[in-house]
Amino acid sequence: MFDGESSHVQEERQHNLPDRVASLIANRRPGHSLQREFYGDEEIYNLDIERIWRSGWLFAGHSCQIPKAGDYFTFELDADSIIVMRGDDRKIRALHNVCRHRGTRLCSESAGTLARIICPYHQWVYGRDGRLLSCRGMQEELDKTEFSLHTAQVREVEGLIYVSLAPQPSDFNAANEVLGTMARPQGFEQARIAKMIDYTVNANWKLVWENNRECYHCNANHPQYIKANFDHYNADDTTARIKEEIATAVTRNEKEWAACGLAVSHKQTGMTNFPDADRDIWFSANRTPLVEGYLSETMDGQQVAPLMGDYTKPTVGTLRMRTLPNFWNHSSCDHAVSTRLLPAGPRATLVRVIWLVREDAVEAKDYDLKKLLPFWQLTSEQDWEICENQQQGVNSRAYTPGPYSLYKEYNVDSFVCWYLKKLSSL
Amino acid sequence: MFDGESSHVQEERQHNLPDRVASLIANRRPGHSLQREFYGDEEIYNLDIERIWRSGWLFAGHSCQIPKAGDYFTFELDADSIIVMRGDDRKIRALHNVCRHRGTRLCSESAGTLARIICPYHQWVYGRDGRLLSCRGMQEELDKTEFSLHTAQVREVEGLIYVSLAPQPSDFNAANEVLGTMARPQGFEQARIAKMIDYTVNANWKLVWENNRECYHCNANHPQYIKANFDHYNADDTTARIKEEIATAVTRNEKEWAACGLAVSHKQTGMTNFPDADRDIWFSANRTPLVEGYLSETMDGQQVAPLMGDYTKPTVGTLRMRTLPNFWNHSSCDHAVSTRLLPAGPRATLVRVIWLVREDAVEAKDYDLKKLLPFWQLTSEQDWEICENQQQGVNSRAYTPGPYSLYKEYNVDSFVCWYLKKLSSL
Amino acid sequence: MFDGESSHVQEERQHNLPDRVASLIANRRPGHSLQREFYGDEEIYNLDIERIWRSGWLFAGHSCQIPKAGDYFTFELDADSIIVMRGDDRKIRALHNVCRHRGTRLCSESAGTLARIICPYHQWVYGRDGRLLSCRGMQEELDKTEFSLHTAQVREVEGLIYVSLAPQPSDFNAANEVLGTMARPQGFEQARIAKMIDYTVNANWKLVWENNRECYHCNANHPQYIKANFDHYNADDTTARIKEEIATAVTRNEKEWAACGLAVSHKQTGMTNFPDADRDIWFSANRTPLVEGYLSETMDGQQVAPLMGDYTKPTVGTLRMRTLPNFWNHSSCDHAVSTRLLPAGPRATLVRVIWLVREDAVEAKDYDLKKLLPFWQLTSEQDWEICENQQQGVNSRAYTPGPYSLYKEYNVDSFVCWYLKKLSSL
Repeated sequence: MFDGESSHVQEERQHNLPDRVASLIANRRPGHSLQREFYGDEEIYNLDIERIWRSGWLFAGHSCQIPKAGDYFTFELDADSIIVMRGDDRKIRALHNVCRHRGTRLCSESAGTLARIICPYHQWVYGRDGRLLSCRGMQEELDKTEFSLHTAQVREVEGLIYVSLAPQPSDFNAANEVLGTMARPQGFEQARIAKMIDYTVNANWKLVWENNRECYHCNANHPQYIKANFDHYNADDTTARIKEEIATAVTRNEKEWAACGLAVSHKQTGMTNFPDADRDIWFSANRTPLVEGYLSETMDGQQVAPLMGDYTKPTVGTLRMRTLPNFWNHSSCDHAVSTRLLPAGPRATLVRVIWLVREDAVEAKDYDLKKLLPFWQLTSEQDWEICENQQQGVNSRAYTPGPYSLYKEYNVDSFVCWYLKKLSSL
Repeated sequence: MFDGESSHVQEERQHNLPDRVASLIANRRPGHSLQREFYGDEEIYNLDIERIWRSGWLFAGHSCQIPKAGDYFTFELDADSIIVMRGDDRKIRALHNVCRHRGTRLCSESAGTLARIICPYHQWVYGRDGRLLSCRGMQEELDKTEFSLHTAQVREVEGLIYVSLAPQPSDFNAANEVLGTMARPQGFEQARIAKMIDYTVNANWKLVWENNRECYHCNANHPQYIKANFDHYNADDTTARIKEEIATAVTRNEKEWAACGLAVSHKQTGMTNFPDADRDIWFSANRTPLVEGYLSETMDGQQVAPLMGDYTKPTVGTLRMRTLPNFWNHSSCDHAVSTRLLPAGPRATLVRVIWLVREDAVEAKDYDLKKLLPFWQLTSEQDWEICENQQQGVNSRAYTPGPYSLYKEYNVDSFVCWYLKKLSSL
Repeated sequence: MFDGESSHVQEERQHNLPDRVASLIANRRPGHSLQREFYGDEEIYNLDIERIWRSGWLFAGHSCQIPKAGDYFTFELDADSIIVMRGDDRKIRALHNVCRHRGTRLCSESAGTLARIICPYHQWVYGRDGRLLSCRGMQEELDKTEFSLHTAQVREVEGLIYVSLAPQPSDFNAANEVLGTMARPQGFEQARIAKMIDYTVNANWKLVWENNRECYHCNANHPQYIKANFDHYNADDTTARIKEEIATAVTRNEKEWAACGLAVSHKQTGMTNFPDADRDIWFSANRTPLVEGYLSETMDGQQVAPLMGDYTKPTVGTLRMRTLPNFWNHSSCDHAVSTRLLPAGPRATLVRVIWLVREDAVEAKDYDLKKLLPFWQLTSEQDWEICENQQQGVNSRAYTPGPYSLYKEYNVDSFVCWYLKKLSSL
């Protein structure tokens, strides 16, 4: 909390869950989708913002977006804008994009490079670390050390930048351990952005996650994705032939990976279990094989860019990472695709999809966007359309929570349980 | 109420009228227009939705829009979307456009034909009657008979489709009797849609109705309409000459209609009395003569399409029907024009105007849209503009309810009384 | 209050300040910018409307916009629309743009000339003074004298038209005295509108005023303005050279003005003190010299139109006027620029900038818009951009009120004190 923050805001944060929300939580039918109110009610949306988005660790972007001192990008959560900037000491900081004088937004561009941060209104000058360097025209007795830009917490793990707006953020160590170990070989610190696409998806952020947490919808909706992956098969439809196929792929990959020092961590069909409310697991990563013939998540399975990171062969399967409430990543041997969510109202979510390649790869020479983008661009856009249809439906008074498939939607239920637990606690 | 509906919603429905609304109703000055709050207040709009729109019988469309099994159209009330579909048994049903699994909107198109209703998300399959036929991937113990699509009540009368979202809808028998008798000769079941135009009118739905309930505004605003009709004349301005004119028209038509078995039911100038809050009359229909020289409500009075229904001669005057809260129709010998309202917020109404001709009439051969449309398109659009101007004015703090003309606005007062009675009762 | 106004509205007006607003006011840190809530909260915006905008005197426009009987323009405050019309008696009246019958907006055009005001709905006819002249179709016993258009208070001072929506407006005499004396020589009554530009500025109206109340931002943002004026210099940066410059300009001008009977009222650098909450000063005017070489606030300082009003030489410096909550004006020898604000939501302000020249000046012959407009068009648009940036920043939870410069922002503090005092009192 900032010194000057009004008591009104403090109260907002400390109050108990309103009775009607507590009652909705208590009445949720286990194993069923959430009640309508969770997907459109303004009060619940505000609680989501307070108790999930302003409390958790948010993926902001990749450190390779700001390689040099003074490089920055901005990101917005709720009404807050954050400048994520690399300092002269090479450290990455999260500075609130708000002048300490009269509150003017400092950076209007979404990314750039600055020697100093200068307010466009009265030219107060801040350093790349957020310290107030000068404020011509103010009284001499003003103590400049009291007017550094407000900051948020930052953690960097293997090139992934996380920001927390919480005054006392929750633990990051366990996540750091898991993500660090799994992400290291992918080489995110020696990567570059090949493409970013921003979407406004007209659906509550939880619908976007619920869509991400199952592959029940993949057969009919993701013709590209299912050719390369095993996770749309589940206990009820993993035939002997499929079992043999994945066993073969695991065995083959395990041999190769052992030689490269890469761990195999998900050897079955179906999706890995995530999240886990009881054990406070909001982060996870695993490596799993691709289907025979697929070296990369591309339309034809062929490698489309130079090998990334520590990889010496293309046969590394696929690395998958996800952190709640706003990040997932699918990485192949030659490229990685990160997805970042930001809430934009009870019925809208901003989604950024980021394609990364090795930092020295040159477009048109080493890779072609026409081959790099389609697999995940199509798969993503197929999902956004589904989510928007679902939002339309759950708006209806006639919507009643329905049952989850025990075979295919166990992770949707896990997500919903994680969400309700977070919403219930401060 | 649906089984899974939250207690929160139940409470919404059962609570008493809020004190401030009850007080506004109590303070309404008889014979005067309503207070400003009724035309823009969010709370009153929500009460309108609950107590009028979700309780009453809504005109949805014409049965000739869905002649074959599997044909459907959708319509939206508030956040609800309804699929109006003809089944294999030729029965018309109103199915909520919401998958029973996780709530996805099933039909995104506004009309079409389907063999089965298949959810785009996880491919749950429903029959044309709304029964769940299959849900691949779900646990075997799930009882499919419990997951039919939620339905709304439907009544069909002579090709007019009515839907009620109320769990226990009010009586339809009396309306069925009146509309059935009067609509039969027009032949709506053997009709086809020649044209539909959708409008967003930036005015509260009640202003649209109040405009419909008087012809005080016709002289200056509807130059086309007044040439063909007698209802803009009232007790104060029906001259001896006009009296003679309508008497002649009535006599002439009565003779002809008697021969055709058609009843004359409105023989005076001025509009028939409607609605009637005391007698719970929310529906009415009447036949009245057109001015000498007018065979049809067209720009020059000439017949512009083949005779509809049972008519054997063009001299059938004009049939008028209306049902609250959302339908009116003006029918001539050769075509019919239906108007359907749907509320879209405290200050907006969606209006659909539908032109119908005989089902075997062929455009460009048997009728020309340039001759068919203008009379009611112009008259309708003239009204929408007036309603929007009135909305702008009643928004003002300076608006004070004004007196209705005893000669010309008796039906506006009747409408307001009907509305306030409905609003006051559950 | 109108007779028919609902008790609900009366209550709104009489209630005390809500506790949370009173608490915010009590907690405001002296000498610092206001808390975030004042710039975006819906409840505070509504209080601003009630206690400032509906209570004060609002600049509506210039009398030269409606020189002839029947000429009118409309202006909107909140949901109210006012017709400002010149009557047959040449008096200017403010008539509510709402028919006394059923509330229809009477004039849809923003300006025009009318012999009678005729309601487009049912043709009730009002005179240019707002009296109901006829209402064909109504019952004979209706007393037309009871149905004049509702009016608002009007004051005209030297061609400036002020309107108050308050039933008992506050005193205008002191403002009339000051504005009348200072505005007279400019000749606003013998002026004409050369150009009007309307802007929607996405910032709370108070941010627009705070921007207007200091020239701390001028050096970096207004390269044109600072060449012509002395007010961006303050106690901390008025060097000996600048002191000499302004003293020279004052002396030179005083001599000339004395000869013309024009008073010198602001002889220093920096801005004149305004407003003054303690003395209830919401209006002020002063004349001050321009920089050597500037005869007019134009890009090169040259005169660009014929001398206005009583001026016989171009060396009259610049006349500045401002009235809260919605008007300021900068006048040169040859043209005048008026700015009118109207609130359009918690985060939006409608701004109209009006350029005036002598009434007999002919475009293209006596003046060229390309030379007349740029100085104030650029300066205004530079400010709107700043205000929008500031609004973005103060929306953030991380915004904390910052200190005002004692040298340069004394008037911003005066404005904030005036505002809070008005907000606190009925």
